[in-house]
Amino acid sequence: MYDIKGLNEECGVFGIYGHDSAATLTYMALHALQHRGQEGAGIVASNGENLFGARGMGLLPEALPEQKVKSLASYKNAIGHVRYATTGASELSNVQPFLFKSHKGDLGLAHNGNLVNAKKVRDALEDEGAIFQTSSDSEVLAHLLAKSKAATRKDKIKHALKQIKGAFAFVILHEDSLTVALDDHGVRPLMLGEVDGAYCVASETCAFHAIGATYIRDIMPGEVLTITEDGIDEDRYVDTTYPNMCSMEYIYFARADSEFHQNSIYRIRKALGSALAEEMGDIDADMVIGVPDSSLAAAKGFSAQSGIINEQGLLKNRYVGRTFITPDQVMRERAVRMKLSPVYDLVKDKKVIVIDDSIVRGTTSKYIVQALKNAGAKEVHMGISSPPLKNPCYYGIDVSTHAEIIASKKSVAEIRVEIGADSLTYLSVDRMHDVFKQFGSRGQCDACFTGNYPIEIIDHILPQEKDRKVKGV
Amino acid sequence: MYDIKGLNEECGVFGIYGHDSAATLTYMALHALQHRGQEGAGIVASNGENLFGARGMGLLPEALPEQKVKSLASYKNAIGHVRYATTGASELSNVQPFLFKSHKGDLGLAHNGNLVNAKKVRDALEDEGAIFQTSSDSEVLAHLLAKSKAATRKDKIKHALKQIKGAFAFVILHEDSLTVALDDHGVRPLMLGEVDGAYCVASETCAFHAIGATYIRDIMPGEVLTITEDGIDEDRYVDTTYPNMCSMEYIYFARADSEFHQNSIYRIRKALGSALAEEMGDIDADMVIGVPDSSLAAAKGFSAQSGIINEQGLLKNRYVGRTFITPDQVMRERAVRMKLSPVYDLVKDKKVIVIDDSIVRGTTSKYIVQALKNAGAKEVHMGISSPPLKNPCYYGIDVSTHAEIIASKKSVAEIRVEIGADSLTYLSVDRMHDVFKQFGSRGQCDACFTGNYPIEIIDHILPQEKDRKVKGV
Amino acid sequence: MYDIKGLNEECGVFGIYGHDSAATLTYMALHALQHRGQEGAGIVASNGENLFGARGMGLLPEALPEQKVKSLASYKNAIGHVRYATTGASELSNVQPFLFKSHKGDLGLAHNGNLVNAKKVRDALEDEGAIFQTSSDSEVLAHLLAKSKAATRKDKIKHALKQIKGAFAFVILHEDSLTVALDDHGVRPLMLGEVDGAYCVASETCAFHAIGATYIRDIMPGEVLTITEDGIDEDRYVDTTYPNMCSMEYIYFARADSEFHQNSIYRIRKALGSALAEEMGDIDADMVIGVPDSSLAAAKGFSAQSGIINEQGLLKNRYVGRTFITPDQVMRERAVRMKLSPVYDLVKDKKVIVIDDSIVRGTTSKYIVQALKNAGAKEVHMGISSPPLKNPCYYGIDVSTHAEIIASKKSVAEIRVEIGADSLTYLSVDRMHDVFKQFGSRGQCDACFTGNYPIEIIDHILPQEKDRKVKGV
Amino acid sequence: MYDIKGLNEECGVFGIYGHDSAATLTYMALHALQHRGQEGAGIVASNGENLFGARGMGLLPEALPEQKVKSLASYKNAIGHVRYATTGASELSNVQPFLFKSHKGDLGLAHNGNLVNAKKVRDALEDEGAIFQTSSDSEVLAHLLAKSKAATRKDKIKHALKQIKGAFAFVILHEDSLTVALDDHGVRPLMLGEVDGAYCVASETCAFHAIGATYIRDIMPGEVLTITEDGIDEDRYVDTTYPNMCSMEYIYFARADSEFHQNSIYRIRKALGSALAEEMGDIDADMVIGVPDSSLAAAKGFSAQSGIINEQGLLKNRYVGRTFITPDQVMRERAVRMKLSPVYDLVKDKKVIVIDDSIVRGTTSKYIVQALKNAGAKEVHMGISSPPLKNPCYYGIDVSTHAEIIASKKSVAEIRVEIGADSLTYLSVDRMHDVFKQFGSRGQCDACFTGNYPIEIIDHILPQEKDRKVKGV
Repeated sequence: MYDIKGLNEECGVFGIYGHDSAATLTYMALHALQHRGQEGAGIVASNGENLFGARGMGLLPEALPEQKVKSLASYKNAIGHVRYATTGASELSNVQPFLFKSHKGDLGLAHNGNLVNAKKVRDALEDEGAIFQTSSDSEVLAHLLAKSKAATRKDKIKHALKQIKGAFAFVILHEDSLTVALDDHGVRPLMLGEVDGAYCVASETCAFHAIGATYIRDIMPGEVLTITEDGIDEDRYVDTTYPNMCSMEYIYFARADSEFHQNSIYRIRKALGSALAEEMGDIDADMVIGVPDSSLAAAKGFSAQSGIINEQGLLKNRYVGRTFITPDQVMRERAVRMKLSPVYDLVKDKKVIVIDDSIVRGTTSKYIVQALKNAGAKEVHMGISSPPLKNPCYYGIDVSTHAEIIASKKSVAEIRVEIGADSLTYLSVDRMHDVFKQFGSRGQCDACFTGNYPIEIIDHILPQEKDRKVKGV
Repeated sequence: MYDIKGLNEECGVFGIYGHDSAATLTYMALHALQHRGQEGAGIVASNGENLFGARGMGLLPEALPEQKVKSLASYKNAIGHVRYATTGASELSNVQPFLFKSHKGDLGLAHNGNLVNAKKVRDALEDEGAIFQTSSDSEVLAHLLAKSKAATRKDKIKHALKQIKGAFAFVILHEDSLTVALDDHGVRPLMLGEVDGAYCVASETCAFHAIGATYIRDIMPGEVLTITEDGIDEDRYVDTTYPNMCSMEYIYFARADSEFHQNSIYRIRKALGSALAEEMGDIDADMVIGVPDSSLAAAKGFSAQSGIINEQGLLKNRYVGRTFITPDQVMRERAVRMKLSPVYDLVKDKKVIVIDDSIVRGTTSKYIVQALKNAGAKEVHMGISSPPLKNPCYYGIDVSTHAEIIASKKSVAEIRVEIGADSLTYLSVDRMHDVFKQFGSRGQCDACFTGNYPIEIIDHILPQEKDRKVKGV
Repeated sequence: MYDIKGLNEECGVFGIYGHDSAATLTYMALHALQHRGQEGAGIVASNGENLFGARGMGLLPEALPEQKVKSLASYKNAIGHVRYATTGASELSNVQPFLFKSHKGDLGLAHNGNLVNAKKVRDALEDEGAIFQTSSDSEVLAHLLAKSKAATRKDKIKHALKQIKGAFAFVILHEDSLTVALDDHGVRPLMLGEVDGAYCVASETCAFHAIGATYIRDIMPGEVLTITEDGIDEDRYVDTTYPNMCSMEYIYFARADSEFHQNSIYRIRKALGSALAEEMGDIDADMVIGVPDSSLAAAKGFSAQSGIINEQGLLKNRYVGRTFITPDQVMRERAVRMKLSPVYDLVKDKKVIVIDDSIVRGTTSKYIVQALKNAGAKEVHMGISSPPLKNPCYYGIDVSTHAEIIASKKSVAEIRVEIGADSLTYLSVDRMHDVFKQFGSRGQCDACFTGNYPIEIIDHILPQEKDRKVKGV
Repeated sequence: MYDIKGLNEECGVFGIYGHDSAATLTYMALHALQHRGQEGAGIVASNGENLFGARGMGLLPEALPEQKVKSLASYKNAIGHVRYATTGASELSNVQPFLFKSHKGDLGLAHNGNLVNAKKVRDALEDEGAIFQTSSDSEVLAHLLAKSKAATRKDKIKHALKQIKGAFAFVILHEDSLTVALDDHGVRPLMLGEVDGAYCVASETCAFHAIGATYIRDIMPGEVLTITEDGIDEDRYVDTTYPNMCSMEYIYFARADSEFHQNSIYRIRKALGSALAEEMGDIDADMVIGVPDSSLAAAKGFSAQSGIINEQGLLKNRYVGRTFITPDQVMRERAVRMKLSPVYDLVKDKKVIVIDDSIVRGTTSKYIVQALKNAGAKEVHMGISSPPLKNPCYYGIDVSTHAEIIASKKSVAEIRVEIGADSLTYLSVDRMHDVFKQFGSRGQCDACFTGNYPIEIIDHILPQEKDRKVKGV
C-alpha cells in the first residue's frame, strides 16, 4: 500500500449504557470511527449479569459480520473499539475490547492512547506472579483492577488509574456499570452524549451524529464517569490536571464533521488554512488546491483569506489504499500516479498553491509536486497548515521514527529542495496555538513539533514498538 | 449496500500493443478505470503466437492478484476489462476479456456497451448450430467473426460489425494485432494514446495519465483501428455516422480528471454548475454544498457563477459502500446517516443550496435534505446539474427501470415535495447541450432525459435483463 | 501430496428421471462415486422446461454446498458428475455437467471416458465457425448435436455418437428426457437402476446402494437409452459391438462394494488374490498383508488359497492424502513413513508377503518394503494381483506416461531389485482374464498390460494432455 | 457430520529437545497423532532464549501451513499439541500449546487430560487477583508456576503439580529445558523416545515411528522428567502412585500401530476379539465382519479363535466424515447408507457376526444391523470387544453424558432389541482386565464400565462442559 501519510491513529472507543439497541448502535458508532482504526474491531455487551463479546480482524463488515452483532442484540449495555493497523504482525488476540472472565465477575475493557509506564508496572506485576496474554496497556489496567484491595469498584478503578501514566481514554464495562476515564492531560478526545435517554461516550462526536445522539460535552482531563441505572456519577481520580489535547487530532486525525469543544474540526481546519495564508503573505498564483481528502478544508480557508480561487486540481482515486501489485522497477514511478491525479487542462501553464496538513516523510509531497509539474503546472508552491513535524509521539500516535521524519533531519529550505516545490511555507507554532485557543481549547500537546513532551516518558517505548519491547519477541 | 445512485456504468476497456510491460500497464490502466466496473476484471495477453488470460471476480487486487499479472508479464500485447456489478447473479464465466481458443488461432475480446439486436443475431446463429456459453454481446461478435467468409481478418471484423447494432466499444486481440472498433453513434467513449512508442486505447484518458501515456485523440464513431507491428491502420466499417456520445458520461460516470475532446470532465461539470446557477437565478442562500464526490465540481461552478460561498457541508464516510449489517427497523433511519454527514455547526440556522448531478430514485436526495435539516439548516434548496432523468438506457447503462425512476412518474414539483426540499431546480436540456457543444462535443444522446432514442431498439432488452432474457433462465 | 498410485480415474456420472428428490439423490450418488473424481462436481436439473445447474471445485461438500443443492430441490430430473484431479491447472469451466443454453432448448451433458478422435472432429467443427469453450469431449458432442440435421432428438444423438470414437459413457439431459449412451466397446462401466419407480443410471452400483436403488442391469456396449415420462426406450446407435471393459476398473478403480455383471468387485478381487497365490506356488511365510485399502480383498483371497494367515501389518494414516508441508531434504525419507505404518511387533523377525493390486512408478512399493524391513521384517515378498502395467491409457484413465511407468522400462527381475523385495510375483494376463470370465465378463481391454489397444487411437492424445494439445496452450 | 462414535479423545502432545529439525519433527509427530484431535494444532519452539509459537484451527495442513512451520525451523527445542473438537464454540484462543511471555522468561505449555479440581484452584487464584484468559487446565498450571515461591524451576513445577488433581500429561517448554509430567494415576499414555541422540516424548509411539525415533519406555505415573542439554533428569512429584491407564485407549482411541508397554495395540485388540469369541461360545455363522476401521483387529482375533472366516463385509466410504448436506426428511434414512456399505452379494442369505469395539448411543449399531439386513443377511449377531459402556468420563474423554449412553439406561437384552440384532454379546470386565494384564498393564481405569472412579471428582465438571462452567458463559 502506498500510504498517503506516515501517521496512524491509535484507536477509537465507544460505550453506551441502558439502550435497547446497544450493540447495533455501538456497531454504527464504530463505523463512524473507522478512520481511527482499520486493523480490527470488537464489541463487548452485558446483560446485567454476564458479558459477551465479538471481535475480528479487518474493517467493520469483516471484523463483525451481521450475525456476530445480532448475537449481542438483546443486551442493553455495550462498549466497542476499533484498532489501528500497526506495521508489525497483527493478531486477533490484540483486538479489543478485552473480555476477562472471572468467578468474581466479568470485565470488558477498551482503550485509546498509550501508557508511558506500562512496562514498568507490568514487570512488577509479573514479579508477583501475574501472567499477561497481550502487550496491550488495557491488560495492565485489568491486572491492577484485579489486584486492588480498595473497598468499592470505583475506588479500585481510581486506585488502578493512579498507578498508570500516559495518554489514555478507557471505557470499562462491568455487568451493571459503564465507567469511562480520561488521563490527567486529556491527550485523546473523549466525548459524552445521550440518545433516547441513554448515556453514551465516544472518541469523536461524528459517532454521535451517526447514531442520532446529542453531543453533551467533552470529558475533561482526569475525569472518571460511572454510568449505572441510577444515572451518571461524575468524579475525578486526580485533583490537578494539565490539559494537553493532541494537536494532530485537530490537524489530521479527527473527522472534519466531529466537534471538539462544540466547534467542528472543519471550521478549525479552515481557520488553520486562513492563518497560513496570512503568514504566507502575498503570492502570485492562479489557484489553490487542497490535497484530498484531509486538506480540503484548509485549502478553502486559504482561498477565502487570500482571495485566490480554490479548485479541485488533484483527485484521489477512491480505489487506492487497497493492496496493489508491486510494480516492476521501470513501472514504479508510474505507479505513483495512481493515487492522486491532477486535472491536466486545469493546471497546465498555471501557478498553483497546494495546501497539505502535514509532511511526514516527504514522499507524498514529492509525488504531488512532480505530478502537477508533469501535468504542465508552471509553479507549485506548497503550504502546510501546521508546523514542521519533527518528533515521534509516545502518547498514542504511530508517527514514523525520527529516522523517517524528514523535518527531524532537514531544514525547511532543504525539504523544499527535496520535494521539488517552488516554495514551501509551514504554519508557525504560535499561530497554530492561537487558532486552537480561538476555538475553545485550553491547551494542546505540541511535542511532535517542539519536542516539549508534557508527560514524562518512563518506559521510552514508542507505541509501535510495544509488541517487541514488552513481549520480548 | 446503500447505493448512492441507481446508476451503474457498463464497463471499461483498455488495450496496448508492443510494450515490454504490456500486462503491468494494462493492470494499472484498469485500476484507473475501476470506477467503470467493480464486479470483475481480466487481462488477455499475446506472445505473438498464442493468447493467455487471467481474470477474476471483485476489485482489481482480488480479481487479479499479483501472481496472475506476473504470469503474463513477458507478453507485449494485451487487452483488459473491468466489469460492472449487475444486480443479478454474477459468475466468473461472464468476466471479460473472453479468450476463445481455436486451431485456427486464438481470439481475445472485450466490450463496453450494449447491442440492441444481440438476441436476434444470436437466435439466428443458434439455428445454424452455434453454441453460446454466455449472455454477453462479446460472444455474439466472436461467433460472427468465426463464421465470416470474408477474405482478410480486417474484412471479417468489418463484416461482423456491420451485422450488429447498438452501442459498443470493442477491443479485439489476435496473436499479432490489436483491433478496436466504435459503433457508428459513438455512444461510449474510446480514446487513443501512446506510451514509449506503443499505441494504447482506453475508455477514458485517466487511464493514460495513470500509465504516463500521451492522449492523442478520441476514437470516432464508426472507426476500426488495427494496430500491428507495422503501425496503425485507421479505417471505418461504415460510411455514415451519427455522433451521439452518452450525456451521462459527462454528467456522472467519467472520472473528473478524464478528458473528452481534450477537455477535462472537471471543467465541463463546473460549466454545468454555472449554467444551473444562471437558470436558477437569484436565490437567497448562505452557502452552496456539493454532494461528494461526483458533484463537487458542479458546486464550484455554481458558486463561481452565483457568488455564494462553496462549503464542504456534507462529508462522505470513506468506509461506506461496503456491505453493512442490516439495521433493525428502529435503526434503519439512523443507518442513513452513516454515508453522508453534515457539518453541524456549519449548516446550523443556515440557508443552503445543495448541488447534485442527478436524481434517480430520489432516496439519496431525501436523505440529504433530512440530514441537513436535522443538523439545523433553515432552508435546503436542491439544484441538479442535469435535466430530469426519466427513461431507462438501452445503450450500456444500468439505470433502474421506469418503475424506479422518480422523474418518470412525478413532476418536478412532486419530486420536491417527496424529497422535502424548499426548492428544486434542474438544468434544462437545451442548456445542457449548449455546455457540451461549448466543450467540443458534436452530438449527445439525451434519451434518458427526452426519450428520443437515437438507435432503434430491436430486441427491447435492457442490459440488466440480458441474462434472463437471452439465456432463458 | 504423496500419491499412493500414479493412477487416476477419469470421472463418474449419475442420472435420474422423474423423482421428487432428484437433486438430493444425485448428490448422494455423487458422494458414493467420489472416489472416481475429487477435483470438482456438479448437478444439472430440469423442471420439464428449463435446465438449471450448480457446480464447483473440490470434494462434494465444497463443490456443492447445501444451499446450492437445495436450490435445485424442486426439480424431478437431474444428472451429476464428479471430475478427477488432473495434474495441470484446473478451472471451474471444466467442471461438468455442462449446461448449454439456447433458444432452441437447453442441454445438460456429462461424460466419463475419453474420445480418441475429439481433436479431429473439433478441428473440422472450428473450420466451419464453431467456437469451443473447453477442451472437453463433452463439448464436442454438444456441437455435433447442435449441428445435426437429423429429424428427431434421438436421431440427432445417434448421428452425433456415430461421429465420435473412443471410450465414453454419456448422460444427456434435455428438458423432458434423460439419455444415456455407452460406446461400442463398453470400456467404462454404466449401470441401470430404479428407485421409487424412477429410473436411474450410474457409473457404479455403489451409487445405487447409497440411495436405496435397485440395480437392474449393466448398460451394454453401443446402447442408447432414452428415459421419458413414457418409460424407457432401449436402442443402439451401432449394430456391432466389441465388449472391452477396462480391466483396471476391476483391479483398482471401482469400489469393492460395487457390482459388475451382478458380482461384487470385492469377490472378484479376492479371486484375483487366490489366482495369484496359485501362480506363486509354495512360499514359506508367516503372514500375508494387504496394502490398504484397495488390496485388502486380494490379500484375503491369497490367504484363503495359500493358508497363510492374513494380518493387518500395514496401517494407513487416514489423514494422509491432504496437502502436507514439504519436508526439508533430511526429513524427506521420514515423511514417507507417514502414509503407511507397519505394526512393529507384528512383523518383527517375520517373513511377510505383501499383496498390492498394481505397481505404477514403483515408489510406493519401495517405501512399503523399506518400512517393513525397518520394522524388523526378515523377508518381504511382494505379490501383485494383476499383470505388469506397461502402457498408458487412451480410454479415460490418467496413467503416468511411459517414462514414469516402471514396468515399461524394466523387467520383473529389475523391478524386484529396484523395490528391494525378496521376491516379486505378478498375476499372468491369462489367469486375470480367466478370473474376469468366471465372474461374467464378456471381454476386457488389457491394453495397459499388453499394448493391444482395441480402439484405434486417432488423435494420439492422452487424456491428461488434452488441455495442452486441444486448446493449444 | 454423522459421527461414527460418541467418543472423542481429549488431545495429543509431543515434545523434543535438542534436534536440528525440532519443529519439522514435531509437525510430523502431530500428524501421526492427528486421530487424537482435529480441532486445532500448534507448535511452540525455543531458540535457547525465547519461545515462538504457531497455531491454528483445523487439521494440521490448515492449522499449521508450511510457512508457519518453516518460521520455527531454526529452533532446536519444541512442543506440539493437537486439540480435539468439542461440541461447543471453538476458538483459536483455546488451541495449545499456550505461550506465556514474561520478563522473567517465556513458558510453553501443552496438556492431554482433564483436571478434577481445576475450578476450585482457579477460583482461589482469581480471589488473589489472577486473570485467566481461557478455560483450559493448562492455564491453571501456568498460574501455579508463576506464583510458586519454590527455589528452583523443578521445585516450582513439583509444587504446582501437587496442587492439581486429575488425569494429565503435561509437556512444558522453558527457554532451555523440556519438562514432562504424568499424573499419579497415569490415566493418559505418555511415551519416551529418542531420535538422532535427542530425547522426545509423545502420547503414542506411532509418533515415534513417524519420525524414525526409537521407543524407549512408557513414562510412569507420577514421573517428572526434565530434559536439558545435560541429558535427562528422572524424578517424581509424588511418592505413591496408582496405575490406572484408561481402558478406552486400548479399546478405541490409540492407533493400532502404537505400543503400550512394548505391545502393539493391534495385538491387544486381536486378543480382546479372541476373548470375546471364547466368551460367546459356539455360534452358527458364515462369516465374521469387523466394523471398519477400529474393530478390524478384534474381528481378526475373533475369527482366529472361533474358526469362522473373516470377511470385509462392511466398507467405509473414505469421504464420509466431512460436512454433508442435511437430507430432507424422506432422504434421512438413505443418508445413513453413505457411511458404511455392506458388500451385497457377500452377505446375502448369510448368518453374519459383526464385531465392534464399543456401543455408545447405539445409533451406529442400529444402522449396521439394518444395512446388513437390507443387503440380505439372514442373521446379524453383534459382538462387542469391551464391556457395556455406562458412565461418562471425568479424566479427559468426551463421552456423551449419561442421558445419551444407551447402556446407562438399558440392559443388554433391551439394547439388542433396540439395535435389531439377533444376538448381542459384550466382553466381560474381568476378561478385559485379563487381556490387559497379559500385555503388561499394571492397572486400568474401568470407570466408564463399572462406575468405580479411581480419582475423586472435586469440581464435578465433565471436560465437555468446562467452557460453560469455568468461564460462566
